[in-house]
Amino acid sequence: MARRVLVTGGGGFIGRHALPRLVARGWEVHAAGRSPLPPLLQPDPLSAGQDGGDGGVRFHACDLLAEGEAARLVEAVRPTHLLHLAWNALPGKFWTALDNLDWVAASLRLHRAFAAAGGCRAVYAGTCAEYDWTHASLSETATPLVPATLYGKAKNALRELLEATAGPLGVEVAWGRIFFLYGPQEAPSRLVPDVVTSLLRGEPALCSHGRQERDFMHVADVAGAFVSLLESDHTGPVNIASGDTRPLSAVIDILSGIVGRPDLVRLGARPAPAGDPPRLAPDVTILRERVGFKPRFDLESGLKDCVDWWRSQQ
Amino acid sequence: MARRVLVTGGGGFIGRHALPRLVARGWEVHAAGRSPLPPLLQPDPLSAGQDGGDGGVRFHACDLLAEGEAARLVEAVRPTHLLHLAWNALPGKFWTALDNLDWVAASLRLHRAFAAAGGCRAVYAGTCAEYDWTHASLSETATPLVPATLYGKAKNALRELLEATAGPLGVEVAWGRIFFLYGPQEAPSRLVPDVVTSLLRGEPALCSHGRQERDFMHVADVAGAFVSLLESDHTGPVNIASGDTRPLSAVIDILSGIVGRPDLVRLGARPAPAGDPPRLAPDVTILRERVGFKPRFDLESGLKDCVDWWRSQQ
Repeated sequence: MARRVLVTGGGGFIGRHALPRLVARGWEVHAAGRSPLPPLLQPDPLSAGQDGGDGGVRFHACDLLAEGEAARLVEAVRPTHLLHLAWNALPGKFWTALDNLDWVAASLRLHRAFAAAGGCRAVYAGTCAEYDWTHASLSETATPLVPATLYGKAKNALRELLEATAGPLGVEVAWGRIFFLYGPQEAPSRLVPDVVTSLLRGEPALCSHGRQERDFMHVADVAGAFVSLLESDHTGPVNIASGDTRPLSAVIDILSGIVGRPDLVRLGARPAPAGDPPRLAPDVTILRERVGFKPRFDLESGLKDCVDWWRSQQ
Repeated sequence: MARRVLVTGGGGFIGRHALPRLVARGWEVHAAGRSPLPPLLQPDPLSAGQDGGDGGVRFHACDLLAEGEAARLVEAVRPTHLLHLAWNALPGKFWTALDNLDWVAASLRLHRAFAAAGGCRAVYAGTCAEYDWTHASLSETATPLVPATLYGKAKNALRELLEATAGPLGVEVAWGRIFFLYGPQEAPSRLVPDVVTSLLRGEPALCSHGRQERDFMHVADVAGAFVSLLESDHTGPVNIASGDTRPLSAVIDILSGIVGRPDLVRLGARPAPAGDPPRLAPDVTILRERVGFKPRFDLESGLKDCVDWWRSQQ
C-alpha cells in the first residue's frame, strides 16, 4: 500500500518539523492548513523541487472548522495515514478557548471521513493535561485521567471516542500526549523565548520561583516522536516527552549560562500560576521501548539550539 | 423574553409527548426532524389549527447529521431555549452505533450555533449509561461516571464539554439522564411491547430470569419531566426516573395480570444479557425537589395505559 499521510496543522510549531522528516522517510506527504506552509525547515535534496519547490509536500488550503471541509479534504487526498496536529494552540488562550468544542466536532468529522475513505492508521496530538495533575508521576497505564481544563477535557473526550470506535471503524488510533516543548520559532510569550530574549537584550529575566519540575522536549524531537509513532504499530496513548524532568530553575540556569548572563535571572520575581503542580514527570517507557524513539537533543543541546536561533533573529 | 423552544427529535418516542405539553404551557414550539411529525398526541384545542393543523408546532425538516444543517436550523428559528432529544435510538443498535460520534459532533455544532444566536437555556437527553453500573444506587452527586458503552461514552463526553463551557458561553445546561421507559408506540422489540403483544396473541412471553431491578417510567412522564426541567432553573445532571425500582419480573407480573394471561409467562426462557447489572436504582431527589416534577403514572396505571394502546392496535 502507498504510504500517503495527511498532516493537519502542517504549518504549525510541530508540523513544520514533521513534514520534512516524513518526506525524507519516503512518505507521500499532504499538508492541510489555513495558511500556506512556511518554507520547509530541512528540505530533502532528493525531493525538493519535485512539486513546486515545496520539498515534496503537497499543500491543501483548508479550514477544518468550516462545515464540510474535513470531508472534502479527505476525499481529495484519500490518505492511508493521518497525523492530526491541528488545534487551537494560541499561547495562554487555548486552555479555555471555546473553540475547543469546535475542534472536537471537526476532529470527529475528520476521523469519520478518514475511516470512510479507507484510512488505516491515525495519530493524534493529545496532551499531558488529560492526566490528573495531583499525581507527580504520569503514566499511560496507571495515572487517572482527570483533566482540569477545557483543553484537557476536549482532548480526553475525543480520545475516548476514537479509541472506543477504533475496532469497528478499522482504524488504528495512536495518541501522543505532548508535554512541555520548546524550540526555534516558539511563540515569544512562552517561557524559553521570554527568558532568552530578555537575556539577549541585556534585560532582567523575570521568572517565578522555578521549583516546578517539568519535562521539556525540543520541538524537533516532538515531531520526530510523532513520525516514529506514525510508523510504529503502537495503539493508544503514549507520552511524548524526553524523560528528563527538571526544575524550571535548571532550564533557566542553562539558558543564562549559554547567553552568559546568569546575573540577569530574577527567580521569584513573578508569581507562579495558581495551582501550578510541583512536579509533572512523564513515564517514557512506552515511547522508548514500544515506539522505539530516542530524542536527538538533550536539554543542554536543545536549549543551545534555541539560543542560537534567537540570536540569529536579532 | 419570548419563550421559543427548539425541540430536536420532536417526532421521536419522547418528543411526540413533549410537543403538545410545551404548546399547552404557552411555549412557541419549533420541532426539527428528518421526517414530518406524526399527528400530535394531545392537541391543545386552544392552539390546534393555528399553524396548519399541527397543534401549534412549527415543523422544520432537518437532518442534524448533515454538514451545516444545525447552524441553518438555529438561524431560522433563533430559539431562546433548546430541548435536544435527537440521537440514534434504534433499539439494540444505538449502544454501539458508530454514528454516536456523529451525534456528538452535530450536538456540539448545534450548541455552538444556539449560543451564538443568543440562546439562554439548553436541556439535553443524557442516559443512565453514563454511570458506573457496578453501583446499584445511581446518584447525580455521588456515583462515578464510568460509561461502559459507546453510547454512554458519547453522551458523557458531550455533557462534560457542554458543562465546562456553560459559564463562558452564557448558556445554562441541564442534562436529563433517561433510565428505562415504556409507553404507547414503543418499538416492538423492547421488553414491554414484546411481552404485551405475545400475551395478547395468546403466545408464551419468553423472558429472562427477571430478577434484574430497574426503574421504569412512562414515556409521557419522561416527556413531562423534560418539560419541567426546561422550565426550571436547575443546571447539570438530573435523573429522569420514577423512583420506583422493581424487578423485571414484577413488571411482567403486572402486564400478565392486566392481560389476564399469567399462565403464558416463561421467566428464564431467555438468557439475560452478559454483564446485566442486578440492580440500577436511581436517586430521584433532584428531580422531585429541585425540578419539582412528580410522575402522573405509577407502574400499574402506566402499564395499563400501554396494554390498552396495544389492544387498540390489534
